[in-house]
Amino acid sequence: MSAVDPIANLRDLIRCPSVTPAEGGALSALEAMLSPLGFTVERMVATEPGMPDIENLYARLGTTGPHLMFAGHTDVVPVGDEASWSHPPFSAEIEGGEMFGRGAVDMKGGIACFAAAVARHIEEHGAPQGSISFLITGDEEGPAVNGTEKLLKWAADKGERWDACLVGEPTNPDVLGDMIKIGRRGSVSGKVTVHGVQGHAAYPHLADNAVRGLLPLAHALMHPRFDEGTPEFPASNLEVTTVDIGNPATNVVPAKASFAFNIRFNDTWTAETVQAEILRRLDAAAGDQTLRPGRDKVRYEIVWAERPSHVFLTRNNALISSLSGAVEAVTGRVPALSTTGGTSDARFIKDYCPVVEFGLVGQTMHMVDERVAIADLETLTQIYGTFLSRWFGDAAVS
Amino acid sequence: MSAVDPIANLRDLIRCPSVTPAEGGALSALEAMLSPLGFTVERMVATEPGMPDIENLYARLGTTGPHLMFAGHTDVVPVGDEASWSHPPFSAEIEGGEMFGRGAVDMKGGIACFAAAVARHIEEHGAPQGSISFLITGDEEGPAVNGTEKLLKWAADKGERWDACLVGEPTNPDVLGDMIKIGRRGSVSGKVTVHGVQGHAAYPHLADNAVRGLLPLAHALMHPRFDEGTPEFPASNLEVTTVDIGNPATNVVPAKASFAFNIRFNDTWTAETVQAEILRRLDAAAGDQTLRPGRDKVRYEIVWAERPSHVFLTRNNALISSLSGAVEAVTGRVPALSTTGGTSDARFIKDYCPVVEFGLVGQTMHMVDERVAIADLETLTQIYGTFLSRWFGDAAVS
Repeated sequence: MSAVDPIANLRDLIRCPSVTPAEGGALSALEAMLSPLGFTVERMVATEPGMPDIENLYARLGTTGPHLMFAGHTDVVPVGDEASWSHPPFSAEIEGGEMFGRGAVDMKGGIACFAAAVARHIEEHGAPQGSISFLITGDEEGPAVNGTEKLLKWAADKGERWDACLVGEPTNPDVLGDMIKIGRRGSVSGKVTVHGVQGHAAYPHLADNAVRGLLPLAHALMHPRFDEGTPEFPASNLEVTTVDIGNPATNVVPAKASFAFNIRFNDTWTAETVQAEILRRLDAAAGDQTLRPGRDKVRYEIVWAERPSHVFLTRNNALISSLSGAVEAVTGRVPALSTTGGTSDARFIKDYCPVVEFGLVGQTMHMVDERVAIADLETLTQIYGTFLSRWFGDAAVS
Repeated sequence: MSAVDPIANLRDLIRCPSVTPAEGGALSALEAMLSPLGFTVERMVATEPGMPDIENLYARLGTTGPHLMFAGHTDVVPVGDEASWSHPPFSAEIEGGEMFGRGAVDMKGGIACFAAAVARHIEEHGAPQGSISFLITGDEEGPAVNGTEKLLKWAADKGERWDACLVGEPTNPDVLGDMIKIGRRGSVSGKVTVHGVQGHAAYPHLADNAVRGLLPLAHALMHPRFDEGTPEFPASNLEVTTVDIGNPATNVVPAKASFAFNIRFNDTWTAETVQAEILRRLDAAAGDQTLRPGRDKVRYEIVWAERPSHVFLTRNNALISSLSGAVEAVTGRVPALSTTGGTSDARFIKDYCPVVEFGLVGQTMHMVDERVAIADLETLTQIYGTFLSRWFGDAAVS
């Protein structure tokens, strides 16, 4: 029943189809790994009007400080075109030294390895000199309203305090050991709806095709770039993630068209200033008459899709050096200290304790045939184990 | 049993629920009008794999030339929200000087009036100095695969030849006498699918957002304009009728995006040259690096959505002047000679003989409460009758 094998741990997790918001058995599978190790496991269901309830998990081993939190999520993104997968996305099949499955690297793999590292640490050293907790949500890939933020508050309200946090998201671009994340860009999403006038394609002067209004607005959000980056952060970047009209008739000019977008922004901006820049660009593009000669400004509205994610940067040297040293000791590589990539739930954790992130190689995350090298699972487990020893050792001295 | 009354003729036709592809009794009702006048009536069922069989009708009076064809359709579009109609859509009820019913103007009304005009012509002048035929399809409002095009070929294969054709579609925007159609723009539709690489919105360099490829392609088809119009035709115009991606996740960069378009083109182009110009514009825009700096040309494919509709322009002065003169003699109005509006089955007929179009006022076509003024039925019957006398008179001289 011991969780020392990360491969078995990951297999058990992948076989749970936990596409957000479904728990899919994944938290129960994790509970089955942690309870035998002595963790006190609690399940917390978060609710929000108009949204699906979300199951979350908090597990603690030990009662004293120092207190290290491992944070992550068991929910996964949808599988996309299932027919394109080499192996069923929830089968955890192994082929060519790789395990295939949705969540293999993002981030059931990180959880599987950290659970294995803790199990081995206990086998070799006994209970840690302090406390270890798992703070695991089922709402990281979704709206993140019923996830880590509420789980942190719920635990803090019960008196939980943490000294540091490691998030197990996939942080390595190419090879295990490449990169630790010490900060994250912010993220803002929105949806723009353009209004025109419906009509017959043969009588365009009687209609106002919403597509003619939409194209300049979408273009203006992607060009020019928002900035060129800062010393610690890459350039901010905006992607239009969908455009939808749904008009089946080729002889009908559509009256309404909408697109959604997402921008990842660095510390050049705050969520508020980036929203203001987006509004400025839309307003300017609404007057573009290239596709609508002689027409009034395009009518549109914007809805901000979710609460913005704020940018952050961690500067805790003890935490960073314990992790960086463990990576170098196991892999021989000195990891880059990076702020690239997406948001993670670290943006919530940074309000409670210093937080860094290290996990698997992210190349196949969110893609068809998401998969992880079996060898990486063992290596990451060793890195996590070395980090545990170093961090608790260092913390005991301080 | 004589068909001299267009009101009775139209009532009989409207009461047949001939929504495409159903014959609904409409062709039989027409046959009952024409047979007593001496027409030889034939029914031709057209078939196509995977499509419903369609009944069509061809009726000829006379065996010598000159030979005038009257063309049209008895099928009608669906009634829409039947509860919104003031009178049941297949009841032909008269209220306030108007007859209500689906097909009243598009175009059972035109058929009813032409049958009445022929009946009166025979009563007054005897059989015409030549031949009159009705070429009536049940597949004009549908895919038009089993309709006029096949019926023409079937008749031509039997040796039928025509000197001119009048199509009875509703051509008048506001008042009877406004407008004769002497040509039609062509129409080409297509769907463009752009391929990128799916990925996470935070790692845009690992992905290739299909939207970044799509926007320049869609823009290039709408700008600049294809032409500024010709003496006889309005400017060609292309509308993007839908854009669809259907990506629900704001953190996923979509791998595939598609848009559909429709162009109505004038005699500056043929269907083939307009398709070539579209391909040229797409190819040029595929290399636009504004939104995809440093990337290869965008990968895309195009599917032409249906057989193109070819542009045509009729220059037969005898035909046009007979019709225009008849309109002016009866209504006092000089009709505009127009090429505006959508496609019609005249695009098939123009390969066999000169063709013009004149019918009722089109304002309520395809709408709830489609209806025709009773007075217009009598006026159109007189116009058609005057046209018959003039055309056969002119033709006899030539």
